[in-house]
Amino acid sequence: MIYFDNSATTRPYPEVIETYTTVAQRYFGNPSSLHGIGMEAERLLQQSRSLVARLLGVLPGEIVFTSGGTEGNNLAVKGTALQYRSRGRHIITTKIEHASVAQAFEQLEQLDFEVTYLPVDQRGIVSVEAVQRAIRSDTILVSVIHVNSETGAVQPVEEIGRLLRAHPKVLFHVDHVQGIGKVPLSLSAGDIDLCTMSGHKFHSVKGTGILFVRSGVQLGPLLSGGQQEHAYRSGTENLAGIVAMTKALRMTLENQDANIKHMRQLQTELFCFLRTIPEAVLNTTPEVSAPHIVNVSFPGVKPEVLVHALEEHGIYVSTKSACSSKTGGASGILLAMGLNEQTAGSAIRISLSAENTMEEVREFQRALRQVLPKLYEVTRLRK
Amino acid sequence: MIYFDNSATTRPYPEVIETYTTVAQRYFGNPSSLHGIGMEAERLLQQSRSLVARLLGVLPGEIVFTSGGTEGNNLAVKGTALQYRSRGRHIITTKIEHASVAQAFEQLEQLDFEVTYLPVDQRGIVSVEAVQRAIRSDTILVSVIHVNSETGAVQPVEEIGRLLRAHPKVLFHVDHVQGIGKVPLSLSAGDIDLCTMSGHKFHSVKGTGILFVRSGVQLGPLLSGGQQEHAYRSGTENLAGIVAMTKALRMTLENQDANIKHMRQLQTELFCFLRTIPEAVLNTTPEVSAPHIVNVSFPGVKPEVLVHALEEHGIYVSTKSACSSKTGGASGILLAMGLNEQTAGSAIRISLSAENTMEEVREFQRALRQVLPKLYEVTRLRK
Repeated sequence: MIYFDNSATTRPYPEVIETYTTVAQRYFGNPSSLHGIGMEAERLLQQSRSLVARLLGVLPGEIVFTSGGTEGNNLAVKGTALQYRSRGRHIITTKIEHASVAQAFEQLEQLDFEVTYLPVDQRGIVSVEAVQRAIRSDTILVSVIHVNSETGAVQPVEEIGRLLRAHPKVLFHVDHVQGIGKVPLSLSAGDIDLCTMSGHKFHSVKGTGILFVRSGVQLGPLLSGGQQEHAYRSGTENLAGIVAMTKALRMTLENQDANIKHMRQLQTELFCFLRTIPEAVLNTTPEVSAPHIVNVSFPGVKPEVLVHALEEHGIYVSTKSACSSKTGGASGILLAMGLNEQTAGSAIRISLSAENTMEEVREFQRALRQVLPKLYEVTRLRK
Repeated sequence: MIYFDNSATTRPYPEVIETYTTVAQRYFGNPSSLHGIGMEAERLLQQSRSLVARLLGVLPGEIVFTSGGTEGNNLAVKGTALQYRSRGRHIITTKIEHASVAQAFEQLEQLDFEVTYLPVDQRGIVSVEAVQRAIRSDTILVSVIHVNSETGAVQPVEEIGRLLRAHPKVLFHVDHVQGIGKVPLSLSAGDIDLCTMSGHKFHSVKGTGILFVRSGVQLGPLLSGGQQEHAYRSGTENLAGIVAMTKALRMTLENQDANIKHMRQLQTELFCFLRTIPEAVLNTTPEVSAPHIVNVSFPGVKPEVLVHALEEHGIYVSTKSACSSKTGGASGILLAMGLNEQTAGSAIRISLSAENTMEEVREFQRALRQVLPKLYEVTRLRK
């Protein structure tokens, strides 16, 4: 099996599952309980929080454990709106966000917030100037994805953060779900107020995530109750998941430099190969891309058919992002980049992890060379 | 170790952790992915949904998997408010809800909803008549806990449900977190619209839960995005957690009758024993209580001190509910029952699971007999 769908989800590290099992068995207490079994769980929770904070270069009090990226994005966006709605009702995001940010903004639009959706250029990049132009006196939030989940395009979030220094009443949220472990991002520079990460995108188990909330920033909770997670996210903590995710984060960040170099080599090989295929339209711009995503269209070929044809060779790629793969039609993100319907509607995404190998890339090349002519033959016969 | 804090959390069944591990290892795909690895995960997800639905006597389309009880309660309460706010802004609950319902209502009060908090009698029971009197033409929701988490008092939710048949525009939510597996509740009778359950209260792993949403009922999502869980709860599904919880639910419900009988025997033994202690004030009324909770006050003794003294005998009990144990002061629930500050502020909760034994109960009796005179001695010396 060649798994090239790591932006949808990654295979958990065996060590991470082992940690999960140990904690679920041995530390089953409720961290909120006052007795020893609870306090033992609480201690483990705080150790995890401290380690995550240290790995990210922030304070333990700034780490909120969530159930995943969708929760983090929703809490950051809606929590800000809930908390600061009396300050203003204008919020800004881009046309290339993940569904969990895009839908959160749409929901807020129905609740009388005004949204500016920033466009992107043909590489899929939003401009710092566009952010600057969009800011108004009643703007309370800017939310920008770091690494686009379909194309890998890296947004200038650090520059946007610096721009926003001049607007202290505008909070800045970064969806870092596809970026963590692939494109380093400094939270300690102080320009990002809220930052979402999802465990299962970096080889943790599912149901785990991190929301960084800069100290001083307040959020209206979506899940209120027992005041866990600094009262931003109530509910008995998924301790086994949290400790397992902490381990996955440590393993990911410890090897980050080598991993990035490795993925970049595989990606470069894929870029070079795809350029030799006349029908291929590369939607990922190498110069502005994260090291693990390659988005390519084969106009005239149905992407689902290509996905299944590759699967017969034991190779797993995707069409759009997993969270929007079941809604039909062309990718909204590729359309926002100015691609025509046919190109935007015939894209596949190859997404790597550091576990992939050059041999797997070669195998993919062989498979694609076999599969494509047949698919184009079908297309021609249909015409 | 004698673990008598099962209402805070239960020890996961070893088989449940095993299932978790297997699924996390072998079915790591994203159920939203279109390829075989995703479809395999999706199939397992739907099998779990069907089994949970069958166990609860409802339809698969009525099951929403959540991250736990707090999320379920928040989604039911706020999701209703969000969805039906144009129909009316009056909502009803009781004075003895878990923090995750109580705080959700308080948050809605700040968002211009009007809340009626129903009182309870000295047994901790809300009356059906009080619900009836509270309903207005603009009422959109009634939310009542099934089994109170501190006292075990069983509320007449089935009767309230029948009453609400005459008010088809009023949705009825039941917080069944402490009830599932302990006090059978019929969802198929059709009188309950929304019902929250939490996996870790019935020997599942943490981070898992179920919200039953009767077909025809709509909810505004708190977590929007990829449209997972009928679009009521977006986010990549925690498949390993879901399959593990499904197993825990099956194990719990398969043995429900025997388990209830067993817990009831232990509880009765505890009641009889506590009645022999002159200082003890029983806050749980046996006739209206679930089989697994005993709440008792020892006026004059600090409950934290008693918890720690019992812990020295290897016995783990709690003060209030875990989710409110870190906020000091007397229990709001016991105060709502009309107890005075001293009695309400000196309560401990003993909460059983079917894994507890009569021998453990006897051990508890011996320990309490040793511990109490010493604690009362301290109290007398301080005076």
